[in-house]
Amino acid sequence: MDVGELGEFALIERLRHALPAQAPAELIVGIGDDAAVWRLGDRYTVATTDTMVDGVHFVSALTPPHDVGWKALAANISDIAAMGGTPTFALITLCLPAATHVRFVDALYAGLRECAERYHVTVAGGDIVSSPIMTVTISLLGMAASDCEGLPVLLRRTAATAGDAIAVTGALGGAAGGLRGIKSAAPLPGGLRALAQRQLRPASRVDAGTAAAMAGVRCGIDVSDGLAQDVGHLCEASGLDAEIRAGDVPVDPALVAWYPDDALELALSGGEDYELVLVAPQEKLDAVRAKLDVPLTVIGRMLETRGGTVRLLDPAGHTLKLPASGWDHFAGRGHA
Amino acid sequence: MDVGELGEFALIERLRHALPAQAPAELIVGIGDDAAVWRLGDRYTVATTDTMVDGVHFVSALTPPHDVGWKALAANISDIAAMGGTPTFALITLCLPAATHVRFVDALYAGLRECAERYHVTVAGGDIVSSPIMTVTISLLGMAASDCEGLPVLLRRTAATAGDAIAVTGALGGAAGGLRGIKSAAPLPGGLRALAQRQLRPASRVDAGTAAAMAGVRCGIDVSDGLAQDVGHLCEASGLDAEIRAGDVPVDPALVAWYPDDALELALSGGEDYELVLVAPQEKLDAVRAKLDVPLTVIGRMLETRGGTVRLLDPAGHTLKLPASGWDHFAGRGHA
Repeated sequence: MDVGELGEFALIERLRHALPAQAPAELIVGIGDDAAVWRLGDRYTVATTDTMVDGVHFVSALTPPHDVGWKALAANISDIAAMGGTPTFALITLCLPAATHVRFVDALYAGLRECAERYHVTVAGGDIVSSPIMTVTISLLGMAASDCEGLPVLLRRTAATAGDAIAVTGALGGAAGGLRGIKSAAPLPGGLRALAQRQLRPASRVDAGTAAAMAGVRCGIDVSDGLAQDVGHLCEASGLDAEIRAGDVPVDPALVAWYPDDALELALSGGEDYELVLVAPQEKLDAVRAKLDVPLTVIGRMLETRGGTVRLLDPAGHTLKLPASGWDHFAGRGHA
Repeated sequence: MDVGELGEFALIERLRHALPAQAPAELIVGIGDDAAVWRLGDRYTVATTDTMVDGVHFVSALTPPHDVGWKALAANISDIAAMGGTPTFALITLCLPAATHVRFVDALYAGLRECAERYHVTVAGGDIVSSPIMTVTISLLGMAASDCEGLPVLLRRTAATAGDAIAVTGALGGAAGGLRGIKSAAPLPGGLRALAQRQLRPASRVDAGTAAAMAGVRCGIDVSDGLAQDVGHLCEASGLDAEIRAGDVPVDPALVAWYPDDALELALSGGEDYELVLVAPQEKLDAVRAKLDVPLTVIGRMLETRGGTVRLLDPAGHTLKLPASGWDHFAGRGHA
């Protein structure tokens, strides 16, 4: 069997089980969440890594290199934000064909630097190697706060409780709509350009993540694979089912304007919005809302049943079937 | 200009200068050493990353996947050892063609796990993505001890002083000889197989690095690009010249047995031995020797002159010219 047949998530599970069952006490969070957490003395290090491959996650001949640099770092920052952590320093690995223009690398690094400055990240090192295919791999470190008992303050995928409300920051689908726009036309008309920016230069919700964690929210994930799939990851990790009311999902207004027929589907299944899903009792989320710098919309709830799956409901309360429900790096779109 | 013309080290310098001149106080060591060091509270995190690309650093059709996994991690561990640190946890990124056999990935992970257990490293997370080319990227975290004043105990490339002696652990050239053997014959005769193991499953000198740092050695680097080139990096970082007495360099005995004519050259310029170069006053090195689990051989000294270059001397005291002096990932072997 090859890894394409097995699929990304089954492969991760397989490799996870190949590792020693016994982990040291310093490992607070291992494989299976948005980032790992390691205790160092009385502090907590949060660590994540994310790769972008030319032709798979971007197209070097088409995507502005400045945007490649920004997005490679922003995706990692989002994983730290999804743990309730604050990013600190990054290691940058560039695999470059020898024929890559130095100008391209300069621009990529300028975008990366801009994102680093925006989110107070220090580039501390990395690796540069020759490769037939360009890839940008970033490892990002961060820190988590600790409570008065010295325990880490984290947003975990595993921490949902039956009856909790599910909320999402900002609006969804913009990144997927932007990708569609980029593929459809060049140069982009002005209005579509703003949507493309959601795809090319996503924001990361660091302030929202830390504010939510400090206010007592204990469960979250970022929307990187697509809302339905990411809430599915959270359900699996927490061992509970969830219900999302599609009519309550905040859809990016520019997406509604440009692609009205597909806007809801893109908001439910489109990836790379890098908004945060927060799960907590409704009154906790209501209290947190005032502390966030972005809108927070309740879109569903965790159920009592233990199937580990997510159900989408249309406004009439019927189950909604998505033609595509997220991204598998090997299988491509369309798997159930 | 493309990155092949510019070369790896010039590109790193260029990107380093593109970053903000002002670094936060938490960044103790940034770009330009074997690993970065970051202060977290009163602790010190050491961080490095290293990539292996199929067809560049290994050949997936020829190299046993178990060895690919071992070596990918061992190379990173060596960078932590070269700072005097202790490795703690790793993030593993696999870029895999969809047609990669799951068995290959299983074996790669088994090798990685074996190396992780040998050096007490925990695999805490990672990323798996689809890619036309297989690459294995590891980010490894570690910790450095601190002295009674709370300052980190580190081996730095920058810390050499004129008059210091230069020593190296173990013996050199085995990895380069092993590579030659692997390329020359299959199956390998028994004696050559031991040499091939130096290439395929290198050891990392963690215990030697921490023992040296704790005993007061303040300057070191690992032999990854080749002795002459790595001592050259140390000279550049310390702003001093160095002199290596080629006749004193410990050459791998199996290398001498199999390739007597080229053994010294391979020991001076061959990469990936992952031994440690330690630089300190002679009496300090003599005191450290007893605390190490490997031989430590003095091979030269730091000079008063500030050229940032290394001079190789033959037994008669004449300058020795190497036909090749190390590895540039873009330019390939043979640059000055």
